[in-house]
Amino acid sequence: MSKYGNIIVGQSGGPTSVINSSLAGVFKTAKDNGAKAVFGMRNGIQGLLENRFVDMKEGVKDDLDVEILKRTPSSYLGSCRFKLPDVEKDEKTYEDIFAVLKRLEIEHFFYIGGNDSMDTIKKLSTYAKAKNEKITFIGVPKTIDNDLAVTDHTPGFGSAAKYIGASVKEIIRDALVYDMKMVTVVEIMGRNAGWLTASAALAKTEECEGADMIFLPELDFDLDLFVDKVKKMQERKKALVIAVSEGLKTKDGTYVCKMGNSATLKDSFGHTNLGGTGMFLSNLLAEKLGCKTRTVDFSTLQRCAAHITSRVDVAEAFAAGAHAVKAAFENETGKVVVFNRVSSSPYSMLTELADVAKIANVEKQVPLEWIISDGTYISNDFINYARPLIQGEVSPYMVGGLPRHLVLR
Amino acid sequence: MSKYGNIIVGQSGGPTSVINSSLAGVFKTAKDNGAKAVFGMRNGIQGLLENRFVDMKEGVKDDLDVEILKRTPSSYLGSCRFKLPDVEKDEKTYEDIFAVLKRLEIEHFFYIGGNDSMDTIKKLSTYAKAKNEKITFIGVPKTIDNDLAVTDHTPGFGSAAKYIGASVKEIIRDALVYDMKMVTVVEIMGRNAGWLTASAALAKTEECEGADMIFLPELDFDLDLFVDKVKKMQERKKALVIAVSEGLKTKDGTYVCKMGNSATLKDSFGHTNLGGTGMFLSNLLAEKLGCKTRTVDFSTLQRCAAHITSRVDVAEAFAAGAHAVKAAFENETGKVVVFNRVSSSPYSMLTELADVAKIANVEKQVPLEWIISDGTYISNDFINYARPLIQGEVSPYMVGGLPRHLVLR
Repeated sequence: MSKYGNIIVGQSGGPTSVINSSLAGVFKTAKDNGAKAVFGMRNGIQGLLENRFVDMKEGVKDDLDVEILKRTPSSYLGSCRFKLPDVEKDEKTYEDIFAVLKRLEIEHFFYIGGNDSMDTIKKLSTYAKAKNEKITFIGVPKTIDNDLAVTDHTPGFGSAAKYIGASVKEIIRDALVYDMKMVTVVEIMGRNAGWLTASAALAKTEECEGADMIFLPELDFDLDLFVDKVKKMQERKKALVIAVSEGLKTKDGTYVCKMGNSATLKDSFGHTNLGGTGMFLSNLLAEKLGCKTRTVDFSTLQRCAAHITSRVDVAEAFAAGAHAVKAAFENETGKVVVFNRVSSSPYSMLTELADVAKIANVEKQVPLEWIISDGTYISNDFINYARPLIQGEVSPYMVGGLPRHLVLR
Repeated sequence: MSKYGNIIVGQSGGPTSVINSSLAGVFKTAKDNGAKAVFGMRNGIQGLLENRFVDMKEGVKDDLDVEILKRTPSSYLGSCRFKLPDVEKDEKTYEDIFAVLKRLEIEHFFYIGGNDSMDTIKKLSTYAKAKNEKITFIGVPKTIDNDLAVTDHTPGFGSAAKYIGASVKEIIRDALVYDMKMVTVVEIMGRNAGWLTASAALAKTEECEGADMIFLPELDFDLDLFVDKVKKMQERKKALVIAVSEGLKTKDGTYVCKMGNSATLKDSFGHTNLGGTGMFLSNLLAEKLGCKTRTVDFSTLQRCAAHITSRVDVAEAFAAGAHAVKAAFENETGKVVVFNRVSSSPYSMLTELADVAKIANVEKQVPLEWIISDGTYISNDFINYARPLIQGEVSPYMVGGLPRHLVLR
């Protein structure tokens, strides 16, 4: 006989390299501690509303599968960008969700996602309390952007930062190969928060000079000053590597990427899809300075390069999922798992619970005092913050020369 | 007392993830077999003409350094795109080169590079014979493009193919995450030869459906047919991942990348710098089919991602350098190291010498009979050819969470 009832888990928002490690944490902890059944929503809440779900035990058959799942990028269960409406405007959607949950005899609900997904947990747990429903709702944070409030950092950020640090190091070696003036502009994700772009600073190591300049979206971006700074720096050094955030904006609020001709679509949360900042700035430098330029855009690679994850990140993502299950089994609800840093050196982190209302819809940016050198670089405060999060590796399981993934049929 | 005299080695053309493994092979084999001194040209022939060279033993101090060098992307010594003029037009350059070589008492000259570098070996060895100079000249092939004739494949290709296979697998997982119509266009290097783009086919494995279509530069590209094929495929499958070569051209010889507004510069070999093919096709599909599209351009990452190299490739690159030294010490000249495949399964490869005249300035494309499915996919002949080349891994030496490189000061 099972000690606990049925649980259901979903993944939402943009995927990361370790969001499946959190899923593995939820699944294995629930299974090992006596949950009756572990259901997985296909494509998050959206799939749940369409009665699409799976029995997790059918796809994740043993502990080897759990390990492969931890090494599989993107969301195993599929994702969605479904924004739960306010209950005052559309109670029907809430009734539909709870109807499915009751039919499946769900006692605990877990949602792995970012800002918008925590909003879903907030709304569902509030609704459940108001309706005296016994189902508990716990959020497990994920986002490569690292822009969630309350928590020291977010699962997914460490691996993306490690990918960016390693790739920028490699790009620097490549960029310096010719004895000629050249600027490589590396475009990095992060709509309003510069955590990922700042991670280019990690490339500066004993043997590597690091990126030459780093521009975050936290500060207004000035095109003329940018060109001037590059020109001055070129007088001392021929080949430059410059990291820029996809979300750079000028003082009047215009996105740099919109200055070119890049398509600007909006997703269903109303976020603008950015892209083209790097290419626009490369072209600008080529035109103004007459030098060769190149653009590298990490695009989705920075969130799906599971072959180079941080061991700290994978372990913490798993622990966050495990902690969520433990909390739910103690009948916590309306909570989110957060990290509380005890020390950076030696690295020590506590896994705790916070009220989900404190984290939903709040965006955490890089502290302005960490942005130095006239807005062109990042202080050691950031390095001390981020370096512990990229430590250690998780060996991919290589089959036929390529990483094996766990895939839902 | 040394058994052999002084040698000099240079690197030329676009770098790869394993070109330094060939350098390590030249250096260690020469040193261990009794070369008096091992000089390295800074920035290839161009640096040599400017009297810029280093004593390799100062930078590569021990066998640990040799191992780190094998794990360092890009050209340790720097590179150049210096096209050696014909001797009839400019004998002075030849005299200058030989003056430097004689001053350094060089007996053996090694050049690690692609097509154009082999042309340099051909010209210098021919000149040496004509002038009765005793210096020998041996070429060591490298290019991610795999477009060199005579040799079965080229060091650098295997690791780039492994990076592409692994990354396309990861991108596919990421691309399928939402339950919506979306096309991801992945742009892959290869100006006229589709070897790298074909490597996207490696992503198709037991658990991965692979790229949906693959377009090589070997065939004329038809924009209307392309849109039609994507549209038809979308009726069966919502999210598509399509690999395209940067060098796609329409029947009239127009590069697809030139149809947009991407900058088209030429390098000093007269090659057009391509880029923008993926972005152009993404925009075309978004416009014609009204679906969400995304572009991933591997850019330089495919040639510098030394954190994920093929063990076979690293070992063969080293062996090519070692074989070149052995040949030179046996007074071979005007030769290039090539691979001769004995068997694909089990994989067995012979390292041999070929006349450099046979390899210089010849470009090897993917056999047309390997391109199947109405020009949209690659046959198993390619898989059988390429799969052995991506086998095995070389663990990066991680320091502080990032791969350590050997850097020339």
